[in-house]
Parts: sequence; structure tokens; C-alpha cells
Amino acid sequence: MDNRVLFKRDLKEKQELVNIILDRFLPRKDEYPKEIHKAIRYSLFAGGKRMRPYLTMLAWQLFQEDLEPITYVAAAIEMLHTYTLIHDDLPDIDNDEYRRGKKSCHAVFGEEVALLAGDALLVGAFELLTWAPLPEKIKQELVAEMAAECGAKGLIAGQMADIESEGKKPDKKTLEYIHQNKTARLINLALRFGGRAGGAKPAELKALEEYGTNIGMAFQIVDDLLDIEGSQEELGKSIGKDRESGKMTFPSVYGMEKSRQMADDYKQAARQALSHFGNKALLLNMLADFIVDRSN
Amino acid sequence: MDNRVLFKRDLKEKQELVNIILDRFLPRKDEYPKEIHKAIRYSLFAGGKRMRPYLTMLAWQLFQEDLEPITYVAAAIEMLHTYTLIHDDLPDIDNDEYRRGKKSCHAVFGEEVALLAGDALLVGAFELLTWAPLPEKIKQELVAEMAAECGAKGLIAGQMADIESEGKKPDKKTLEYIHQNKTARLINLALRFGGRAGGAKPAELKALEEYGTNIGMAFQIVDDLLDIEGSQEELGKSIGKDRESGKMTFPSVYGMEKSRQMADDYKQAARQALSHFGNKALLLNMLADFIVDRSN
Repeated sequence: MDNRVLFKRDLKEKQELVNIILDRFLPRKDEYPKEIHKAIRYSLFAGGKRMRPYLTMLAWQLFQEDLEPITYVAAAIEMLHTYTLIHDDLPDIDNDEYRRGKKSCHAVFGEEVALLAGDALLVGAFELLTWAPLPEKIKQELVAEMAAECGAKGLIAGQMADIESEGKKPDKKTLEYIHQNKTARLINLALRFGGRAGGAKPAELKALEEYGTNIGMAFQIVDDLLDIEGSQEELGKSIGKDRESGKMTFPSVYGMEKSRQMADDYKQAARQALSHFGNKALLLNMLADFIVDRSN
Repeated sequence: MDNRVLFKRDLKEKQELVNIILDRFLPRKDEYPKEIHKAIRYSLFAGGKRMRPYLTMLAWQLFQEDLEPITYVAAAIEMLHTYTLIHDDLPDIDNDEYRRGKKSCHAVFGEEVALLAGDALLVGAFELLTWAPLPEKIKQELVAEMAAECGAKGLIAGQMADIESEGKKPDKKTLEYIHQNKTARLINLALRFGGRAGGAKPAELKALEEYGTNIGMAFQIVDDLLDIEGSQEELGKSIGKDRESGKMTFPSVYGMEKSRQMADDYKQAARQALSHFGNKALLLNMLADFIVDRSN
């Protein structure tokens, strides 16, 4: 089978497994009070690529075969990611009306419901972790790590730095801080969860982490480039927002050409980190290509 | 020693223990990015009575002596509570400019920082639970329970129902649903955490739960009464807000006199539930009085 076909089929299969768990976990749309459950489902099933849970599942598969236990963890990662998107899009933060080609959560359900839907997804991520059929000790580690990574010293610190950087002079150090904490951090967490739950040894975790940091940076650069190059139709979110708001982005700090080169360099470094796993890392390698070559 | 003096001293001692853990856990005000850490500390140390963590610690003391392990859990409960206050006060929800006699978080730090500070406190509550020197199995239960209680089927459902009820005809069933899910739920969780971590047997947990449900309802009724009777100075939050916004409250459904009577009845029922524990429950009994007789 052609590698690209293999990759797409595998991604689709794993997306479906994650969707099944999410669907089982979430209250139905018609449960009282309906609006909140509708909003949660709207955002979770708004066509996300499920890239982060896919990373979790691929990392796990380097060490384990049965996908069931890790699918809960992967779905928790997706809930966490969706919470960050909903809160980021709120008028208080980025004020984005579109996300993944659809109206963002608050644009459809109002700000109060979107705020609570985000909160519910964050809490739900922790709950879903505890549902995973994994040993208590591992689950406790995952809970502790997820909390530490998402908190005031992690994701939220990145978000704050992002807000504070708006309108300021572009600065390489700040830009790196923001993306290490915002994008790369969650991507790394996704990979590490798969590795740790699967029983990765320290050197293997380190290789996964290196891969993660590199695809995380590549992903963010491509995101910034697409924000400038893409058309709204293709990308499905408001275009040029970052420029308008005076946000610090890779193109604004390094220019377009250099940014594109950096994305490729990060991709190569990511692939290099995977050499540790040999042929078993085929799909992770293909994912690095997918991230850098995507058009949305 | 006079019982009231004993109670006040005990409350003060336990407040201080909780404050020590919170202070140790939180990033310092001058850590980067500063605004978020300042906002979190501002709201957590804005003069809260620490009633919920106090409940956790008193429930634990029915079964255990050494307070250290439970203080982490109690502090986590306070973080959770403070998260709900910050997000509730946001313009998107209740739009409250004052809280505990001080400007609310968003009034001082802006809406975006307040939103993220709430998120960080919610995440921090989970992290702090994992820090508690308690057996893994118990901690895992607490994490699972906290998540279930705070999520879209718990606290957030109560919050949503509250929002949806605004401007509607007062209705006893909705009012009870809101407060069972908003106020009573977190109070009950605080008690149950103390009991469960302390090793309470099912009948003892049931008694604690009955006490909790009753003081929770009493607390909410008194809150609603104070919203009408109190002066802004005494109470330290915007007065009459509930009336203005057309929110469903106990006085709006039952009238003042009947509400006051109901608060007393709930208090008596709470005290009755404690008879299970005999003299050991002295402080919990006094807390029921404190809740109903408070003037702020």
C-alpha cells in the first residue's frame, strides 16, 4: 500500500476510535441543561484533525498493541485542546469568530455558554483520564502531569505571554517562550502520555520529546504562514487576524522565506529524533510531513 | 473555653494552614508572566472565609488526627471554589464588580487575565490533589470525583441552569436544581472529601452528606437574604444584583419570612444529621450556626 494511503487510513481509524470514546463520555445533546451539552459537542465535533490524540496513540503503539486503554487518554488530550481553542477564541482573548471553517463556539452559543463549555471540557479531560483502564499509579502520574502542564506555569503562562506580547516589538526570545508553552507543550504532552502509559524507557521518552518539540515548532510556524498565505475558505478560520492584532508570529519576526526554511529544518530534526525507533516510527515520520505540508 | 471562642480560634488556625499550602503551591507574584500569578493570588487571598476547606478538615478530624495530608485536599477545594467565583463574576456571566469587599478579579486585571486565572485555579485544584500525601488509590478517587462533580453534569450544569433561569417566572423545581448543583454540591464535595480521605464508613458518609446538603441549602438561602437585606459595606459584594438581573432566588420564590424559616429548618436538619457523631461533631455543629447567623 502507498504510504500516504496507509497514513490517511490509519489517521481516520484512530480519529473514529477517539470519537467513539468522546461520544460515550459526553452527556447527550438533549440532557438538561441542553445548551451546554450542545455547545460542547459542537466544538468537539467541529471537524478537528485529532492530531494530538493521534500522536498519543502512535507513541503508545511504539510499545503496545491493544489501543483501548490509550484511546481514553487520547480523547482526554483532545478535550483539553478543544478547551484551549474555545477560551482562546472568546472576545476577551483572541476574538475569533471562525474556527475550522465553522463559527466558533461563542459565535453560535454566546459567550457565557462558551466560557462554561471550555471549563467543562477542561474538567472533562481530567475525568476521562481517570476512566482509562490503566494502573492507578500511571493514571495518577498522568493527572499530575496534565495539571502541571496546563496550569499557570504551563499552557496558561504561554497564553498570558501571548496576550502581553500584542503590539510589542517582535522579539525572538518571547516568540519562542510563547510557542514552547502554547503549542509545543500540548503536542509534547500528547506524545509523552502515549510513551509513559505505554512503558517507554527514559531514552525513548527523550527521543519522543525531541520529536515533539520539533514538530510543535514546525506546526506553529506553518500555522503562522497559513495565516498570511491561506484563504479563509481553505483554512476555515479568520485570516490575517494575527497580523491585525499585532501578534508576534514567526513571519513577523523572521520574514516569510526564513520561516518556511525553519519549518523544514524542524521537520528534519523531528524525523532525525525518530531514528531511535527505526521502522516502527513510520507513521510518526509521515505525520511530520503532513504537519509541514498541510494547506489548512 | 467559650464555644464561640473555641470555634473562631479553630477556624483561624485551619485558615492559616490552608493559606500556607496555597502560598507554597502558587507561583510567586514576580514570576513570569507576572499578571496571571498576581491575579491568582489576588483572588485567593481576597479575604475568603475558607468555609469549604474548613468543612473538609473538620470532616477528616472525625476520623483522623494529623491534619497535614488533608490540608492539601482542603486547599484544592478552595482553589476550585475561587475558580467558580472568578468565572461567575465575569461580564459574560454575572458581571459582578465586587467580591468580598474588594474589586473582583476582572475589575482589577481585565477580563482576559481573569478568565485565564480561573482556568489556572481549576487546573491547580487537580494538581494540588495529586500533591497530597495520601494513598494513590484514594487520590485517584478524589480526582475522579472532583472532575465528575465540577463538570457538565455538576457545577457547570447548575451554573447553566442559573443563567437560563434569568428573567423567567420563579419556579421551585428550577431553584432547587440550581442550588443543589451550584452551592450545595461543592459544600458536599468538601465534606465528602474529608470523610472519604479520612476513612469514613458508608453510614458516616451518608450522615456527612445529609449535613452538607442541609447546610448548603441554608447557606444559599442566607446568601439570597443578605443580598436583599445587607448593605454593600457589610457584605462586600454588589448588593441587589440578583434582583436586578431577575435571577431566581429563595426570597423571590418563597418571600422573605418563609425563606428565613427555611434556613432555620435546614440548620436544624443539619444538626440532626450530626447526632451520628456525638460530641466529636461540636465544631461542625457550630459551623451550622455560623452559616445561618452570619451577617456577611
